[in-house]
Amino acid sequence: MNAEIISVGTELLMGQILNTNTRYLSGRMADFGINMYYHVTVGDNPTRLKQCIANAFSRSDIVLFTGGLGPTEDDLTKETVADYFGLELVVNEKYKAWLLEKMSSRGYPCTPNNIKQVMFPADHCIILPNPRGTAPGCIMEKNGKTAILMPGPPWEMEPMFEEEVVPYLQKRSNCMFHSRTIRIFGKGESQVEYAIKDIVDAQSNPTIAPYAKAAETTLRITARCGSEEEGEKLIQPVIQAIEDRVGEFIYSTHGREMHEVCAELLKASGLKIAVAESCTGGMIASRLISVPGSSEWFMEGAVTYSCDSKMRRLGVKAETLEKYTDVSAETAKEMADGIRLQSGADIGISTTGYAGPTGAPGLIGQVFIAVSTEEGCNAYEVNLKGNRERVRDGAVLNALNLLRKQIIAKNRCNLDINVL
Amino acid sequence: MNAEIISVGTELLMGQILNTNTRYLSGRMADFGINMYYHVTVGDNPTRLKQCIANAFSRSDIVLFTGGLGPTEDDLTKETVADYFGLELVVNEKYKAWLLEKMSSRGYPCTPNNIKQVMFPADHCIILPNPRGTAPGCIMEKNGKTAILMPGPPWEMEPMFEEEVVPYLQKRSNCMFHSRTIRIFGKGESQVEYAIKDIVDAQSNPTIAPYAKAAETTLRITARCGSEEEGEKLIQPVIQAIEDRVGEFIYSTHGREMHEVCAELLKASGLKIAVAESCTGGMIASRLISVPGSSEWFMEGAVTYSCDSKMRRLGVKAETLEKYTDVSAETAKEMADGIRLQSGADIGISTTGYAGPTGAPGLIGQVFIAVSTEEGCNAYEVNLKGNRERVRDGAVLNALNLLRKQIIAKNRCNLDINVL
Repeated sequence: MNAEIISVGTELLMGQILNTNTRYLSGRMADFGINMYYHVTVGDNPTRLKQCIANAFSRSDIVLFTGGLGPTEDDLTKETVADYFGLELVVNEKYKAWLLEKMSSRGYPCTPNNIKQVMFPADHCIILPNPRGTAPGCIMEKNGKTAILMPGPPWEMEPMFEEEVVPYLQKRSNCMFHSRTIRIFGKGESQVEYAIKDIVDAQSNPTIAPYAKAAETTLRITARCGSEEEGEKLIQPVIQAIEDRVGEFIYSTHGREMHEVCAELLKASGLKIAVAESCTGGMIASRLISVPGSSEWFMEGAVTYSCDSKMRRLGVKAETLEKYTDVSAETAKEMADGIRLQSGADIGISTTGYAGPTGAPGLIGQVFIAVSTEEGCNAYEVNLKGNRERVRDGAVLNALNLLRKQIIAKNRCNLDINVL
Repeated sequence: MNAEIISVGTELLMGQILNTNTRYLSGRMADFGINMYYHVTVGDNPTRLKQCIANAFSRSDIVLFTGGLGPTEDDLTKETVADYFGLELVVNEKYKAWLLEKMSSRGYPCTPNNIKQVMFPADHCIILPNPRGTAPGCIMEKNGKTAILMPGPPWEMEPMFEEEVVPYLQKRSNCMFHSRTIRIFGKGESQVEYAIKDIVDAQSNPTIAPYAKAAETTLRITARCGSEEEGEKLIQPVIQAIEDRVGEFIYSTHGREMHEVCAELLKASGLKIAVAESCTGGMIASRLISVPGSSEWFMEGAVTYSCDSKMRRLGVKAETLEKYTDVSAETAKEMADGIRLQSGADIGISTTGYAGPTGAPGLIGQVFIAVSTEEGCNAYEVNLKGNRERVRDGAVLNALNLLRKQIIAKNRCNLDINVL
């Protein structure tokens, strides 16, 4: 069974919004063992949309559509797909009543263009409720071809997919994929691939797909299988073989991101963390706190961007700033010690660096990271390439990796790090 | 002149990485007056890639490719495009020397698969240097069709586009688009569109494209013109007409994002800010500090996720937490007052709320935001829908909007807010 995704919206073609839906849907379709060979984006133009629909159904069994279900005049996806299938749209009275109720409870008037959101084909159509918006989705099925239409906003599309489309697909799918993702930090993509080339070449099931993401390298190992258990049995020896080659750089064999690994380790070890950030300006705190339950182990964050706040909040000495400047190993160490001692945390982490684009020519990308525990404090220098965003992202990842290593070093015997 | 984008990479079809390149390139191509009607994503499969290339050139003059220039065996874009054009790839000695030098200076061995990165057609080809990676791009031109091949990683692709492709396109483009983006907060997309429907319908140049982005609505007004000055003349009266309808909700008529508007206002007013964050966990600080030069007006951020840190760091009273809980208007106000007084800032902003997914059933999405100045402190309650990420994002946007209003209210006479 082959699927493809058609994203509808001129704003995508104009570069006004980022298409996150295709990524989400692609990952989920892979989980259901459905091959995905194409993504297509087309504007709010019925002629070009119709051509894309015909082209898609000439090569795919299922076409997932996102966008173009809204109330505005250029929202034409449902109309165009129905036209392709030769189906007529009529007002669905049940959903019309739902919409009127919904609009009035929100205190909005139901404008005339809202009504087209509750028009569907009378036959060959399953309506997909949308409790989070005003545009229900639908599945149209005819001549062995299936069109699944969902709204464009991800916060409406994703739950609709999970709650309505997944049960529908489960009925249709008779084989599955099982995947595991290995995450690697500190070794480049081509170096990793060169190191494991013979393992990759020897495999057909599971397959191994390498890819790079900013400072990281990821290997996605995917088995075609009848059950998750069978998939796991196929994948396990491959992971072992890869660990034998590049194990020291692997930080997760279960696809967890760096901040999720840190969160798991903090939780398991019982250690509490506090963060003092200069160039990363709250990003480390924000990423750690994005993990539900972080209140158990996150003590406090300080965003001390100015020298004044470094001194007042963290107790960094004026002499240190004067002698070594605010971007130095010495300042980073006093920041990390300061936040740890003042918050009562077990581990203090700090960052200070030149993120650019202005100031400190020649030094942009230089970042000092310090890790403080009651046993002492160490500072590390990293030199990152790229723009302000990339330098800050790289600093966050390096700081979290140092945090991860610190927790593991202190607690190796007590932590089951194989689950990460 | 029509263009389309082909993104190459099985990892995109598997949902392993987010495609940010199409958004970037689409926005920039629009700036050059080049129509973009399609985006296509295809995997690392030469047969399907070749079909996509033929299809693309049947309807477009320029095809932009990203991805598939790497050293690995599944990187096939250059090979397949050259094959489509009937061109043979040969090692370019100049770039081979560059690559060997680059690899050795990085301390990496030059593996045999790196060499294919410096193979290009001897004719019909312009090589695009890539100082940030090991894969140069190239432009192949034949039979009136142009293929522009760039690497997949955005930090290599974006500068290559700006430094190499832009000068190339400027020669070819003989008309341009000029765009202005109006950003609206506090009024939904369909409400905005309904309010300005007659204005949209009356326009053909400039055009008005509405779209929603999380809690915001954006209108992109695009004029086809001979010069930026002419475009501005066409756009100005349309912006005025829209301001007459929904002016109170507009926060930028120059496309600036909320945190950028706040940064401009802080800079212009000379006011200094400090932030105390609970549920937003450093996101407000991080977004403000993402603006270069923020050290001038950002005094300090405190990420006080626990009650203990709210008391110790910000001076929130134990009685307040006990009587009203940590998620309350009263706590928010003491947090905002506390961070303002302790940092010496002019304005203190705080957030405290239930971001979910666990804890406080029925209250998830409730967030209190307080704004403190020497004239007093006000708290605001917002109730946000969606998952943890969306609640946190919405809280950040609401807090920044309150900050924006506060600065404008205090400084209206002194600020030229028309430039925002």
